[in-house]
Parts: sequence; C-alpha cells; structure tokens
Amino acid sequence: MTARRVLVTGATGFVGRQAVAALKARQWEVHAAAVGQPLAEPGVRWHASDLLVPGEAARLVATARPTHLLHLAWYAEPGRYWTSPLNGDWVQASIDLVRAFLDGGGRRVVGVGSCAEYDWQSGHCDEARTPLVPATLYGAAKRAAGLMLEAMAAQAGIPGAWARLFFLYGPHEHPNRLVSSVVRALLAGRVAECSEGSQVRDFLDVEDAGDALAALVASEVTGGVNVASGRPVAVRDLVLRLGELAGRPDLVRLGARPADPVAQLTAATERLNLQVGWSPRSTLDESLARTVEWWKASRTAGPGGDAA
Amino acid sequence: MTARRVLVTGATGFVGRQAVAALKARQWEVHAAAVGQPLAEPGVRWHASDLLVPGEAARLVATARPTHLLHLAWYAEPGRYWTSPLNGDWVQASIDLVRAFLDGGGRRVVGVGSCAEYDWQSGHCDEARTPLVPATLYGAAKRAAGLMLEAMAAQAGIPGAWARLFFLYGPHEHPNRLVSSVVRALLAGRVAECSEGSQVRDFLDVEDAGDALAALVASEVTGGVNVASGRPVAVRDLVLRLGELAGRPDLVRLGARPADPVAQLTAATERLNLQVGWSPRSTLDESLARTVEWWKASRTAGPGGDAA
Repeated sequence: MTARRVLVTGATGFVGRQAVAALKARQWEVHAAAVGQPLAEPGVRWHASDLLVPGEAARLVATARPTHLLHLAWYAEPGRYWTSPLNGDWVQASIDLVRAFLDGGGRRVVGVGSCAEYDWQSGHCDEARTPLVPATLYGAAKRAAGLMLEAMAAQAGIPGAWARLFFLYGPHEHPNRLVSSVVRALLAGRVAECSEGSQVRDFLDVEDAGDALAALVASEVTGGVNVASGRPVAVRDLVLRLGELAGRPDLVRLGARPADPVAQLTAATERLNLQVGWSPRSTLDESLARTVEWWKASRTAGPGGDAA
Repeated sequence: MTARRVLVTGATGFVGRQAVAALKARQWEVHAAAVGQPLAEPGVRWHASDLLVPGEAARLVATARPTHLLHLAWYAEPGRYWTSPLNGDWVQASIDLVRAFLDGGGRRVVGVGSCAEYDWQSGHCDEARTPLVPATLYGAAKRAAGLMLEAMAAQAGIPGAWARLFFLYGPHEHPNRLVSSVVRALLAGRVAECSEGSQVRDFLDVEDAGDALAALVASEVTGGVNVASGRPVAVRDLVLRLGELAGRPDLVRLGARPADPVAQLTAATERLNLQVGWSPRSTLDESLARTVEWWKASRTAGPGGDAA
C-alpha cells in the first residue's frame, strides 16, 4: 500500500483549514471532515461528519480509509470551552476515532492538544520535564485524550504524537480573541483595551501552525510536541506593534484590563525544530503585518465577511 | 437532605466487595452495582448494571440517587487488562458515570486508579511530586479517567478524589496473582516458582484497602491519594514468609522466574495517614497469616469454592 491518505478532523476550524492547505501543498491526498459547510479548497475530499454522534467515527474511517490521521476536532467556543461539559464528550469521541482508525489499519496518528495541559506555574514548558497538571476541565480533557491516543497507538505498534498548541493568531481567528479583537478595534478607530501586558507568551502564526502540523504528520516523532514559535514576546510589545502596523498606536490602552496572573507561558521548541525538522517561516513582525492586512481586507468585504 | 447514600460500582470485585462491607460497617446506606450476581451482604441494595451499555450510567444514578460515589468498576482480567481495548471503553464509561452523578446532584466522588499511573522509574511514588507518566494502556486509561473525574468534580464544585491502589492480596484474589498463586501452590504441596525477589513493593491487605476507600469517601480530601500500607517489603521476604506460614518453606523456589525489571515501586502514604486519617489495622504478618487461612478454608470448600 503506497497511498498516503490523511484524514483531518475539525477541517474547517481556525487551525484545521490551515492544516488542510498545508497538507495539500505537500502533495497529500486529503480527506477533510467537519460538521459545517466544506471550504473551497480544490482537490480536497470533504466529509460532512459529526464525531459526537455514536458510530460516526467508524463510518467516517470506513469511508475515507485514511493511512494517516490528524485529529483537530474539539469544542472551541471562546469563553466557554474552558468549562464546557462537551470536553468530556470530546474525550470519548477521540477514543472512538482513534480506535476506528487503528482498527482500519491506520499507520500514523497525530492529535492536537494545548499548552493548557501543562502546569502553568512552570513558566517555560518543556515536553520532557514540565509537569502535565492541567488547571482546567479543558486542559484535563486534552491531557486525557492525548494519553489515550499515545497509549492506543503504542499498543497498536504505530507512532502516535500529540501536538500542544500555544498562542495562535492569523486569518479566520475568532473575532473576540487577543490579536483579532485588538486589530479589529484599531481598524475601526476604537480604543483597544489591553492589560498592562508584562506577561510573556509564545505566539505563532496559524498558517505556520498548520504547516507545522503537516510536518509532524509526515514525521514519525512520538509523544508530546510543542507547536510554537520558540520566540517569546511580552503581550505589551505585541499589542504596541499591532498599533503601529494598523497606523493607530494612539488607540492602544495598556492597563485598561486586569493583569493576567500567569506571568510566563512559553514553549520549548527543540523537539519541533530538531526532531520534526520544522521552524517558523516568517518573523513575528511579518506575520503580524499579514494578519493586519487580512483583517483590513476582511472588513472591506462587508458584514458577510469573516470578521462579522 | 441528610441522607448519606453511597453508590459503589464494581461492587462484587476483589476490592469492591471489601469496600461494600467497610461502608456498611460504617453505617452507610450502600447501593452496590455490578454485572454479575449480588453478594450475600445483608442490608445492601444491589443493582444489576453494565456500565458499558450506553445510557446505563444515567439509569443507575436515577435509580440509586446517590449522594456519594465510589467508582471501582473496570476491566481487570489478569494478564489481559494491561493491553485490552476495554480500557478505552472504561474511560468513556467513567466519564458518563461521573457526569450522571454530578447532574443528579452528587456531593462527593471517589474513583479508583493504580500505581501504574506513575512513572515506574521513580521508585517511591509521591502524589505531589512523582510524574504521572504511565507506561501501559491500562495506566494511561486510569490516568485519563482520574484527570476527568477530578476536573469534572472541581467544575461542579464538589470534592473529587482519585485513589491509587498499589499491591493487594487477600480473600477472593484472582488465583493467578502473586500471593494467591504462591499460597495455592504451597497448600497443594507444589513448588512455588518465584523470581529472585529483590524488587521492593508496597503490599496491602485487600480488606484494609476496602476500609481505606470507605474512609476516603467519608473525607473531603481531593486529588490523588495513594492507598497502600506504607511498609515496603522485598518480594523475596514476602514469599519466604508465606512459605513459613503455610508450613512448606522448602517449596519456595526463588530465581525460578525472570527478575522483575522494576526494582522499586512503593508508596508515600502521608496523605492517606494524615489527611484521610487512615492507617492499616494489622501488620503484614497478621494479614498474610489470615490470607493463608482463607485459602486453606477455600480449598476445603471443594471445587465450587472461590479458589476453583
């Protein structure tokens, strides 16, 4: 069997759509599964699929017959996903999906978790050393799903990896998140209320994140892998730069929101850089500039655009 | 609501039956759920219940209306449970059960995990410091279920605890496990083939384990709690003592089986002793003597007995 057929779940999401594009660009046969309408991505086979429906995972795998699986689907509504009972449903659905994939003879599986799996007291998060002690239901559920994916893959004798995403921004971001809300405010001529911004984070362009996931799928790296830029930045510096790029530095209001209690949340990226062989393709400044341009274009597209 | 109604799952199992007896002795209203025939335990309400059946958790909780939950049910067939796909089913079923319990207004939940959740390189396992890096599918699944139980309970604002059992022995043990197989061989006049036995373990009488779980249910301690004796012993010393107690020290053959690669697997018991307020009620020697007597009585009960 020489086919390389990858099934991507959550394929219309913020990260999923970029992973689909990156896998396509890398010449994979891409099967994309999502609940909603398919995207206009030529050459991709779309599957309408709600993985929370019992039996759906087996049906989807039997239809797509993937050799590789990139599992991104999860509940991700900002403000709600931290505490939603749907986190439990997604642990259950992820076990069903991985089982169906392994039963179907799948050869490589990558799931997608979060920096929320780490103990946030740790500051700099290293895959081998930082305790995985999640503080939230979302973090616990991602950790639980990752444990099961890795153990089920190991039991089946195939390589399983668990990507941990840090802070992402870029096209199609939910409008109420940090970068998106600041850029939208600035472009609309409104004040962007920010915290004092001394907290340090790892930010990565979502297009780069999609490409990193595609590289991880193609590798045989096993276990947890941080997917991050490896270039920590203070949130203050990030939003001030957005002010400049949008031409309205005067509208950035630092200290207008409560300070974030987690001073540092950054990622070791040696595994990603050296074992997967992937590094960001553009600088933070280049990516932020593209993001501001995308939101500008999206605004002019009118109320039917993505920023609506 | 002043009722204290505890639902025990896996109530006919090796540990479950002792937990039921201990809770009964502590004046709880006990609802016992299990797949098979109920035990002859006066005053306990039995529920025939297969928690792997979709919807069964909600039905059971609606019937028993427990204020407290002690969740012991899991797949436990010796030799098979380490690798069985049923571990995934039990993660899913445990999420369903905890959700149904919380939705029904439950006030205290205790789940039961294993020393297999710890990194076995660590030797001495401490709840606060030892990495939870399981080496097996069973260990991963128990860790995943524990993460979800604790996070779901915290989200619901009730105390959730996760007991980690170490090495148990005593009445009704599966006949093919360490203490049971050695005692059975000695009592039958057969050679008991053992490893060289330098590995150090924490062994606890299963009746004590049941009582410790009853104490944990009654407490409000949250998070992981080792349930163990806190008295490490070399396996060699344990089996030599069994030889003496059975009157056949000549039949214990050390070094007849491969050495165990894990040199030490012992438990910190400060949380159990100080926070739960529980310590073993008898010495290792007293418990082993009782266990040998139980197997003697069980043998004379003939082929219909528990040792069959």
